[in-house]
Amino acid sequence: MAQIETFDNPHPGRDYVIRHVAPEFTSVCPKTGQPDYGTITVEYVAAAACIELKSLKLYFQAYRNRGVFYEDVVNRILDDLVAACGPKRMTVTGEFTPRGGIHSTVTASYPA
Amino acid sequence: MAQIETFDNPHPGRDYVIRHVAPEFTSVCPKTGQPDYGTITVEYVAAAACIELKSLKLYFQAYRNRGVFYEDVVNRILDDLVAACGPKRMTVTGEFTPRGGIHSTVTASYPA
Amino acid sequence: MAQIETFDNPHPGRDYVIRHVAPEFTSVCPKTGQPDYGTITVEYVAAAACIELKSLKLYFQAYRNRGVFYEDVVNRILDDLVAACGPKRMTVTGEFTPRGGIHSTVTASYPA
Amino acid sequence: MAQIETFDNPHPGRDYVIRHVAPEFTSVCPKTGQPDYGTITVEYVAAAACIELKSLKLYFQAYRNRGVFYEDVVNRILDDLVAACGPKRMTVTGEFTPRGGIHSTVTASYPA
Amino acid sequence: MAQIETFDNPHPGRDYVIRHVAPEFTSVCPKTGQPDYGTITVEYVAAAACIELKSLKLYFQAYRNRGVFYEDVVNRILDDLVAACGPKRMTVTGEFTPRGGIHSTVTASYPA
Amino acid sequence: MAQIETFDNPHPGRDYVIRHVAPEFTSVCPKTGQPDYGTITVEYVAAAACIELKSLKLYFQAYRNRGVFYEDVVNRILDDLVAACGPKRMTVTGEFTPRGGIHSTVTASYPA
Amino acid sequence: MAQIETFDNPHPGRDYVIRHVAPEFTSVCPKTGQPDYGTITVEYVAAAACIELKSLKLYFQAYRNRGVFYEDVVNRILDDLVAACGPKRMTVTGEFTPRGGIHSTVTASYPA
Amino acid sequence: MAQIETFDNPHPGRDYVIRHVAPEFTSVCPKTGQPDYGTITVEYVAAAACIELKSLKLYFQAYRNRGVFYEDVVNRILDDLVAACGPKRMTVTGEFTPRGGIHSTVTASYPA
Amino acid sequence: MAQIETFDNPHPGRDYVIRHVAPEFTSVCPKTGQPDYGTITVEYVAAAACIELKSLKLYFQAYRNRGVFYEDVVNRILDDLVAACGPKRMTVTGEFTPRGGIHSTVTASYPA
Amino acid sequence: MAQIETFDNPHPGRDYVIRHVAPEFTSVCPKTGQPDYGTITVEYVAAAACIELKSLKLYFQAYRNRGVFYEDVVNRILDDLVAACGPKRMTVTGEFTPRGGIHSTVTASYPA
Repeated sequence: MAQIETFDNPHPGRDYVIRHVAPEFTSVCPKTGQPDYGTITVEYVAAAACIELKSLKLYFQAYRNRGVFYEDVVNRILDDLVAACGPKRMTVTGEFTPRGGIHSTVTASYPA
Repeated sequence: MAQIETFDNPHPGRDYVIRHVAPEFTSVCPKTGQPDYGTITVEYVAAAACIELKSLKLYFQAYRNRGVFYEDVVNRILDDLVAACGPKRMTVTGEFTPRGGIHSTVTASYPA
Repeated sequence: MAQIETFDNPHPGRDYVIRHVAPEFTSVCPKTGQPDYGTITVEYVAAAACIELKSLKLYFQAYRNRGVFYEDVVNRILDDLVAACGPKRMTVTGEFTPRGGIHSTVTASYPA
Repeated sequence: MAQIETFDNPHPGRDYVIRHVAPEFTSVCPKTGQPDYGTITVEYVAAAACIELKSLKLYFQAYRNRGVFYEDVVNRILDDLVAACGPKRMTVTGEFTPRGGIHSTVTASYPA
Repeated sequence: MAQIETFDNPHPGRDYVIRHVAPEFTSVCPKTGQPDYGTITVEYVAAAACIELKSLKLYFQAYRNRGVFYEDVVNRILDDLVAACGPKRMTVTGEFTPRGGIHSTVTASYPA
Repeated sequence: MAQIETFDNPHPGRDYVIRHVAPEFTSVCPKTGQPDYGTITVEYVAAAACIELKSLKLYFQAYRNRGVFYEDVVNRILDDLVAACGPKRMTVTGEFTPRGGIHSTVTASYPA
Repeated sequence: MAQIETFDNPHPGRDYVIRHVAPEFTSVCPKTGQPDYGTITVEYVAAAACIELKSLKLYFQAYRNRGVFYEDVVNRILDDLVAACGPKRMTVTGEFTPRGGIHSTVTASYPA
Repeated sequence: MAQIETFDNPHPGRDYVIRHVAPEFTSVCPKTGQPDYGTITVEYVAAAACIELKSLKLYFQAYRNRGVFYEDVVNRILDDLVAACGPKRMTVTGEFTPRGGIHSTVTASYPA
Repeated sequence: MAQIETFDNPHPGRDYVIRHVAPEFTSVCPKTGQPDYGTITVEYVAAAACIELKSLKLYFQAYRNRGVFYEDVVNRILDDLVAACGPKRMTVTGEFTPRGGIHSTVTASYPA
Repeated sequence: MAQIETFDNPHPGRDYVIRHVAPEFTSVCPKTGQPDYGTITVEYVAAAACIELKSLKLYFQAYRNRGVFYEDVVNRILDDLVAACGPKRMTVTGEFTPRGGIHSTVTASYPA
């Protein structure tokens, strides 16, 4: 898995909100082998470290040919990003394009 | 009625939100025999089980030639999905296309 | 005035929300005699009875040639619908098209 | 029927285009007695006379309680306006709100 | 198949354009047995006869449980409507909701 | 300044919300002499008196050639309307078109 | 009337299109004394001279308290701008906000 | 490369237009190795054969990990589809998401 | 750095909300030297002083050729504006255009 | 000025259309010294050479601190790009954000 890099929070004395929206996320359905597409949104309040944007892009690209379910991918991204930057709080949302006429959204937060 | 299948919640230790939106719902008005059309949205927090997407699609398709009122269909879907997956909480919304120049929305939640 | 009909709430054991939106409402300004146009939205939680949709359409049509002010029409609709179905709660909103370059919205709720 | 008034074209030496859009048109279906709603658009090049706007509004209001089919109303408006102002050319379009899940548009032009 | 009814063109002396848009069309894929959904648009210039709107609605509803491909359904509707009303010209368009991440549109005209 | 007229609240026994939106507001910048443009929104709960719509239009028009800053105009309108109708509560918002590439919004409420 | 200034066309050897859109136009109805509002669009191919933007703004502002009809104002602007810059061709369009529920557009071109 | 399958044109006697829009196209930039994303639109008039939709989806998916430039991918798709179904005419358009703040569209047609 | 000017709050006795939106913000990425683009929104409740709009524009323009990260620029603007006008409360938001397919938003508030 | 690089047209035997849209263009007004902002669209049919996308981005960035009028910048970009890649035909459009309440668009084509 690609390494998520961080940099020092330039304003650690203030709680402020950072949001990154990645509309070009794609992975593979582990059941059908078909590609899935969606938008991943990460919103967090940093503690000591902020997520470096280019490494976040490479981290998302690492899912390109990996089989993972909707419910799983959002929780895994949350786990990985929390482990990488130790935020005060973080929410990850995945909005996926329609399959069988149904489109799905999954949202997970830390702390729960 | 089609069987709703489930799979094990891959992250049962965390409360997170799953939403499925089905814009191709259709049933039949029991009074006039005319088809009704609408969008059904299911939003829930899973406990042990998640709803399997393909069986959800087939469950919705089973309403295609069935006579049922707006107020009834939303409550029935909620009852069936709660029975199938035993969620921590769930909300079902049906937004129906205009009839007689009036368009209607019905929303029901579990627990009440 | 047209009679508002009701039918038995099919799920009286659960509080759920019903919304009807009527974008083809028209009445007459009692001051100028000019027609007014607007969208009436009714949102309520039923107790024992639900509002029947066709009778609601006819009830709205009965305002077609009747003179009534914006502030009055919304409150009257609320009074009539509350009297007809005895809901747990109800909100009526009227959004009217511009007159003299100003467009107006009136919203009333029961209980106050 | 309300009288359509005109005023002298202030720039008769130049062919230019005038368009009036009336989104608050309503008439009655002669078959069902139910109200119809739509937007009427009039686009024309004046010869000697322009259509006076307030009389056009009153002319449209005169359809409020009159039974007339979609195909008929657009052609009648075209006939009446051509008779009133003798334009070089004119197109009338009626876009009507859905009935039975189908919405209709009718467009007629002079000269044919 | 439902019978398409017509009525006498009220303004046969003038070529004018009639368009009906039906966003609630549904049929069944003959290959997979899954329902298809789409919007059918009919635009025509009548000769002696106009298409009656309620019979058009019932005609579209007759496809509800019938297996037919996208390319076929649009051409069949065109054939049936041309046969029913003998128009001067007609175009039928079907815009279908996504299947496998691809959405399709088919357009056919008479005369070719 | 134009006089704001009022009429008796037709439903004084119920707290309900009235909103008037005026997108054609214009005044003059006291510093540059250039015209300013914006949308004024008034939302209030009436006590004994409601604001008469035509006098509100004329009151807004009285700002047409008057020099006043954004921050000032919204507060003055609030003061004048509160004085005229003695509402239970009122909020006035002014949304102004861009100047120097920046667009501004000012919102003031009574009671503070 | 404000003076329209011009500057030398920097690329006179090539026919290219310049469009200016002014959404803050306002004048006064000569019949009712009420303000009118609209968007004026000027599109032209310059010959030797281009219209200077600030003087165009001041020219439009000069209509602020002047009584003029829709049909007249668009033709006058066209006449004034053609006189000022002698373009190869020019089109002026005025789109006005609704009066009496009807909104109007007037378009004039040079040469006719 | 995935095989594009075809089926017999069900209405070969009439020229009609088929359009398929695939918003989930992705390939890889041959220069940077970074993924590209875009929407591919195919519009054609069939001769004897129509493109089968599922094989078209698989054909597009075969570009997922292949390095190809924007200008090249659109022309290649056109070549492959023309070879597969021998259409009377066909246009392929690729609209790609921004890279370096610039978004690009390429359109190619057969016959040229 | 450009000086932020202020003027006396014309209604210091009332807490009201002022919002300025600047969609033409640009700075330079300190890592790549490439320009960044975004929209800065400032929302505050003034105490004794309001921010003068023209000096705010010049202050934003001073970032044009300055290297600064997303997370830093929003916090610096907040610090500078709080220092300049001593507001009761203020929120600054920066919404930046996509880089590497990801678009970012940063929001900071005073007091924290 | 930055050098525009090209690459060999991969399909020189076919005329096809390439469009690049750059919404992050900025330059400086030579009269006021204030920054201008806009979207530049380049649409062309290549002959032997295509414009390389990264060098196009750098070419646009070279205008960042350069004083140039709207009418001039669009024609200069057209001249430079025609000189660099010798296209069969090309159109350049600049759409600029409002100044003094007026927004402007300039479009130039080669060959004229």
